[in-house]
This record gives sequence, C-alpha cells and structure tokens, in this order.
Amino acid sequence: MKRWQRKDLLGIQELSVAEINFLLNSAQAFKQVGKRSVKKVPSLRGKTVVNLFIEPSTRTRTSFELAATRLSADVINITANASSLVKGETLKDTALNLQALHADVIIIRHSAAGAPHFLAPLLKASVINAGDGAHEHPTQALLDAFTILEKKGKIAGLNITILGDILFSRVARSNIWLLTKLGANVTLAGPSTLVPRVFEQFGCRVTHNIDDALRDADVVNLLRIQHERQRQTLFPSIGEYTTMFGLNKERFARLKPDAMIMHPGPINRGVEIDSEVADCERSVILEQVTNGLAVRMAVLFLCSGGQAVES
Amino acid sequence: MKRWQRKDLLGIQELSVAEINFLLNSAQAFKQVGKRSVKKVPSLRGKTVVNLFIEPSTRTRTSFELAATRLSADVINITANASSLVKGETLKDTALNLQALHADVIIIRHSAAGAPHFLAPLLKASVINAGDGAHEHPTQALLDAFTILEKKGKIAGLNITILGDILFSRVARSNIWLLTKLGANVTLAGPSTLVPRVFEQFGCRVTHNIDDALRDADVVNLLRIQHERQRQTLFPSIGEYTTMFGLNKERFARLKPDAMIMHPGPINRGVEIDSEVADCERSVILEQVTNGLAVRMAVLFLCSGGQAVES
Amino acid sequence: MKRWQRKDLLGIQELSVAEINFLLNSAQAFKQVGKRSVKKVPSLRGKTVVNLFIEPSTRTRTSFELAATRLSADVINITANASSLVKGETLKDTALNLQALHADVIIIRHSAAGAPHFLAPLLKASVINAGDGAHEHPTQALLDAFTILEKKGKIAGLNITILGDILFSRVARSNIWLLTKLGANVTLAGPSTLVPRVFEQFGCRVTHNIDDALRDADVVNLLRIQHERQRQTLFPSIGEYTTMFGLNKERFARLKPDAMIMHPGPINRGVEIDSEVADCERSVILEQVTNGLAVRMAVLFLCSGGQAVES
Repeated sequence: MKRWQRKDLLGIQELSVAEINFLLNSAQAFKQVGKRSVKKVPSLRGKTVVNLFIEPSTRTRTSFELAATRLSADVINITANASSLVKGETLKDTALNLQALHADVIIIRHSAAGAPHFLAPLLKASVINAGDGAHEHPTQALLDAFTILEKKGKIAGLNITILGDILFSRVARSNIWLLTKLGANVTLAGPSTLVPRVFEQFGCRVTHNIDDALRDADVVNLLRIQHERQRQTLFPSIGEYTTMFGLNKERFARLKPDAMIMHPGPINRGVEIDSEVADCERSVILEQVTNGLAVRMAVLFLCSGGQAVES
Repeated sequence: MKRWQRKDLLGIQELSVAEINFLLNSAQAFKQVGKRSVKKVPSLRGKTVVNLFIEPSTRTRTSFELAATRLSADVINITANASSLVKGETLKDTALNLQALHADVIIIRHSAAGAPHFLAPLLKASVINAGDGAHEHPTQALLDAFTILEKKGKIAGLNITILGDILFSRVARSNIWLLTKLGANVTLAGPSTLVPRVFEQFGCRVTHNIDDALRDADVVNLLRIQHERQRQTLFPSIGEYTTMFGLNKERFARLKPDAMIMHPGPINRGVEIDSEVADCERSVILEQVTNGLAVRMAVLFLCSGGQAVES
Repeated sequence: MKRWQRKDLLGIQELSVAEINFLLNSAQAFKQVGKRSVKKVPSLRGKTVVNLFIEPSTRTRTSFELAATRLSADVINITANASSLVKGETLKDTALNLQALHADVIIIRHSAAGAPHFLAPLLKASVINAGDGAHEHPTQALLDAFTILEKKGKIAGLNITILGDILFSRVARSNIWLLTKLGANVTLAGPSTLVPRVFEQFGCRVTHNIDDALRDADVVNLLRIQHERQRQTLFPSIGEYTTMFGLNKERFARLKPDAMIMHPGPINRGVEIDSEVADCERSVILEQVTNGLAVRMAVLFLCSGGQAVES
C-alpha cells in the first residue's frame, strides 16, 4: 500500500490489514514530534478541526485537541450541552453547518452507535470516530496496537486477554477487530453477564474463569467497569467484581513474567486493578496515553490528505 | 466613504447605507480566504478577541471564533455559567476587567437588549453585538444581505418576506432595518400574535395571510419558532403553526420560480420548513453560514482598525 | 540570585526574598509585551500549558490562558465538570495522564489546600498553583506586590491593611507571607469571626476596629466577602458588614491622602466597597488585573525553564 485512500476513520471493522499497518507506521513518525522542544509541525496549518463531542469526554477530547494543535490546525471544541443540538437541530444539520464554516475534519463522539458512519458520506469533510455508543473507538484500538508493537515487537501469535466489561465497551469491539485481523489470539474474560458467548463469533475465546484467562497471556488489557453505562445490575456488587475479576497482586504474580498490563483509562484503583499493579514496571498505561497522541496525529494527517509517510 | 470610522458594531439601526455597503464590500474580500488551502491571514496577529457569551450560542460563537482565528487573533471564550458573573460582578466590571487584560475586541451576546450599547462608550476595546435580547443581531442581517446580493445581484426593489416569529426576533429587527435602508420591499408575515401591526412603522407591510405573503416574494426568510423565548402561549400549537404558516411543498410550488429560501438556523425540519424545501437548490441556508464567516471577518477587521479595503 | 531554580510555583511561603524579587523583576519585562501592537513573544512556542481548574474561575483561568497564549504556548482548558474526575479518577492519575500528553506546565486550581504541593514532586511538568482551598494564591500576591512597587516604589516600611474575610482567604495568606517577607507592616482587619487573633503569629497586627485599621494605612487591600465559601453565619448580615467594615466615602475621606485602594476582584459594589471609591483615581483595581498578566507570563516563562531575565 503506497497511499492512504480514506477521508474518514469510522472504525476498525472496515480496515484492511495493510491500512492498519500503514496507520501504525505513520504514527511512529509522529511520535518523534512529542519529544522535541518545539512540539509542533506545520502539516495542518490553516486547516479547521472540530471536536464535536455530543457525549462528554475530557481525555479523548484533550488528546485529539493536542494532536490537531501540534499539527498546527485551528481547533474548535463543541460539547453537547453548549451545542445548538439542544434546540432540536438534527445531527446532519449540525455537521453540514460545520462544513459550511469550512471545517476540514470533524471528530465526533456520540452516544449513538453509527453516528459517524451516518455523517461521513454526507460530508466532504473528514469524519473521525472518537467513540460511538458501544460500537467502535478506532483510535483507542490503534494506540493499543501501537503500544503492543512497540513493546513486544509483534502482534501475530500473541495471547492477548481483554478483561472486564466487554458487552458495553466500544474499546473491546475495536480491539477485537484489530487484534484478530493482525493475528493475535484474543481471549475475552469477565462475568458471564458482561462477556456473553456470542463474542466467540468474532474469533475470540470467551471464558468466565479469571485464572484460565490470565495463565498464558502475553498482554492483559483491563477495561474499566463503567457504572455510568449500566442501567441494569449486571453483577452483584463492585466488591464482588473486584474479588472475582480484579487484577490484584496475587493474580499478577501468577502471570507470565513478561506479561504486559494495559488499560484505556481512567482507571478505578482498587476495583478492576490494584494500585501496585497499575504503577508497576510492566504496566504501560501512561505510554498508551502518549501513543494516543501519535496515533491521532497520524489519523488527522492522513485523513485530511497528507501523504508524507510511506509503508 | 473611504474609511471605516466606528470601533463598534452595535446594530444596523445606526448604520448609514454607505457603511452597510462598505461592510458588505469588505466581506467579499474575506470570503476568498475560506477557499484557500491555508485558511488564514495575519491581519489580527497578536490581537486579543474575547467571545463573551452571557446567553449560550454554539453557532454564533463558533462562527465568530473561526472568523477571529482565521484573522490570526488570539481568542478567549467566556460563557455565562463559567463566568464570574455568577459571583455578582456587574457587566461593566466584567468588561473593564477584560480590557485590563488588553482585550482588543469584545464580542458580546446578552439576553438584555442594549447591553452592547451600554458597554461600548465605556471601553476603548471594540464591542461587537452578537445578539442582544430581542433587539439586534447585526452580523446576521449583514450576512443575509450579503447572500441576497451574491445571488440576486441587488437588494433595492426586491420583495423580501420574513415569515415567523417577528415579535421576539432580533434577526427580524436587524433585517428589517437593513433591508428597508437598502430599498427592499419588506413583508412581515405570521400569526397576528407574533407579527403585530406596529411593525408597519418600520416601513414594512404586515400580513397574516400566508398566500398573500408568499405570492410575489423574491426572497423568503423563515424565522425559527423559538420555544425557548416564549413564556406565554402565542399560538395554539406547533402543529397548527406548521399547518397555517409552515413552508411546505405546496406553498413552495406556488412561489415565483426564482424565489430564494433563507433561514438563520438552526432549522426545525417539519415545523417552519419542510425537509425537501430546506434541502432544495433554491435554499441558500448553508451559504448563509459560509457568508457569516466572511462578514464577521470583515467586521472584526474593520472595527479593530484595519483599513485594507476600499468601497 | 542569577538564575531561577524552581520548576514549580506552589506558594509564597517557601520563597526567599531573592526569589520574590527575581519574579517581580522578570514581570516588569513582560509588562511591556501587553503594550505592543502584536502582543506576543515566541518564548513558549511548541510548549503545552494545561489549565486544570477543578474549582471554577473565569478570571484567573482567562488571565493564565492569555499569559500562556502571549508566550505562544498551546493551551488546553480542563474544568471540573467536564473532566474525567467525575468518573472517579484520582488527581494524581489525571496529572500523570496530562504529563503523558507532554504537558510542560500544569496550572491547577483546586478546592483542597495542598493539591499542587501533592502533585509537584510526582511530575516532571511544572506545577503552578492558581489557588488551593483557603491556603495560597501566589500569583495574586505577586501581582499585588508588583502593583504596590510600581505605585509606591517600595514595600518595606509601608503600612498595608488587609480588610475583610481573612480567615477563608488564600489571597490574604499569600499576601501576608509576601508582604511581611518584604518588610511591610501588615494589619489585618474585619469582624473577629473572620479575623482571628491567631493570625498575629504571622507577624501581623490584628484589629477589629475599622478606624484603627485605616488611620495610618498607605495601602488598603479589600477582600471580597465570599458568600460561596461560608457555610456558617460568621457575621449577622451583609448589610451589617457594610455598615461596620465597608470602605465607604466617609472612611475613604479619613484615609491618608496618598493611600491606595486594592481589591483582587470581583468586587461587590456597595458591600465591601462603595462604587465611588472603587472607581476613584487612587483605586488600582484594574491595574492589578493588567499586572496579573505580566506576573503570570514571568511565572510561566521562568518555571518552564526560561532564563532571559537577570536580577
């Protein structure tokens, strides 16, 4: 693959292995920018990037805002409560209005699955999915893959366990699609209410036994227990989740000696992960944050037409 | 008129025809900036522009923010809830504090009519009215006029119908003042509770008959039914408004064949306008948004002392 | 003192006299930037400054944002409600995440005293205290001292009265530490519930008699009565406070003829200060705001490693 062809990044599901690798290679070049004294490149100077966050998120918004800023783009932040969406404007009209203001890229987070996919064909502007409902969060999966590659040198053949709230997690879905495409052996683990057997159709192993999930893992990716998304009681209590599925010191000690700990953040210390485990040398949680910037710079650069990087 | 003389743009009412034309001519030059690959000019580099929105508005705030950004100004956004106004500071003190921070331009939206006019003589900084109560919204009227001129080549002699909630609308007042100054024949239409006969004093025709309002119109400017502003029930129901005054396909079909459809947005699809009409070729709703940027760049540039453009 | 050594500005209490003077001297150079037509210097180009305001404040946030912008830094604003703090992330994790995004400076306002001091040793990034509970607000004390020096030519030997809510005020504490270090005679005055005798241990005079407090004052610094911080009724009523301790025209007339009036803002006109007094020639309230920018530019510049200014 010589050139990036897509104007949008909507999800991992529709990407080819070549496209995923092209993005990951491009991100490597952008990672260097963060290490410079002047952390800026002029790639998107005079371009307008809109952060359209219909569902609030400081972390992802900040990461995209900094990625765009370091590419020298002009960034506008729009959040749901402040937006005219409360006046009953349709999402399509909001997006068309932004395009009429010459927005080059619209980064959208939305509580409804499919919102970015609905907008993309209606717009000349690039649409970047920053999380749509429980569907996809493609830049999170890319930064996770980038981090694994950086640390382990490969993805194919690795045993990668994703542990926690799989059912409601767009991070899980995007990771599953990406990691299976790149040849990892993916295990999903957690309570049966949050990790249904139906996920086996994606080519994953599903287990509800924590020891079974951790025994051979090269990478353990812990997902946050998202209280705010769960309207029904899907497990008896937080305390019981921690006892049954939390990554505590005892379980950590039984992992393979080079097993790596990941978490998309924000972490609940003492719930899905013990503080000592989160802060240990084999945890790459903060490196994931740093790599997120590099991946998002690559995505913004390539989708808005940049082509400096070859695979 | 050789030079722009005002430091403030408070309303259309006090502008001369020469001043209106000077602004509209200047906006033409700035419209080109939006079409460039690098959408920036250095005109306001090192100047500080404050968006002081005491009444929330994403659309107008975003348009002004982008206009200032594309002129290379530094922009600060202040919205009501976050502001120290909640601590009981007076509006005058808030503005004087912003000036003490070397603000060059203060763009103000306020729920109280006259707020920008109160501030302007107290400040060396430029004051731009981004909407004050039900009084004026001058940049909206200018962008509407810009769009009509661009499409129709003139304003004088055109039959322009403004349809909807006139009584509570600053957009209507600013449009009425601008269009009558430039020689248009303005008709105001809608339910008698929202379109009182007293508006005839501004030199407009007032009618409560929709067919009468639309028959000879060259331009139809639809105003949003603003639920959020109406404390009393001024018409029986939304459904009845739509039936009686909505621009549906049947009414659209009876318009003059070159009649143009405008709306300041955000539109209520299926209320004051049918979806097909909003999206048809003769609707210029999104071009109004684009032109708003050009007009606001011209206003910011001229009021802060720029003089590159001659009439 | 030849060079600034600290990466953080946490409070006045730990600063030496030489450090305070070094900061105040540096601020003088930056004050000139605000008077230029292009109000920018490239000192922090490509640096990332985060405004982390866990307690809301438009005034201080805006001042820091403009200070960073005029140094050409990239600025990210994070406020409490929008932040992932609501999802239960610890403050330490929030800060480590910002550092992982290559934040060079984290400006923090927090309702908990000591929050910046807790973060500083955990981070390579500079931590600037923008107000922590009722503890310190060092840049406010520095800008107050800068203003006194500018107007009075010295601080040592001046009689400086701080009047109002001392007990709950971080501004009072930082001012007391700074002014006594620099040799002023500091008097604290107000109702006994808000100005306890225990403050005498800081080397101040404490009085509950307004005439006694004002008689020999060269500078009167009025503190806001902060309704929002007081959970108990510490004085009978606002009206009684105004009668007993408000700086009205009669009291102002009995001051020394060159006594100067200061207030950190936002002012409550008619409560702690009469409107005529606030607006009179001897009030420097708005100059304090202007000087705040210069002081904050110096603090950001020096703490992030700049060394252009010698003492």
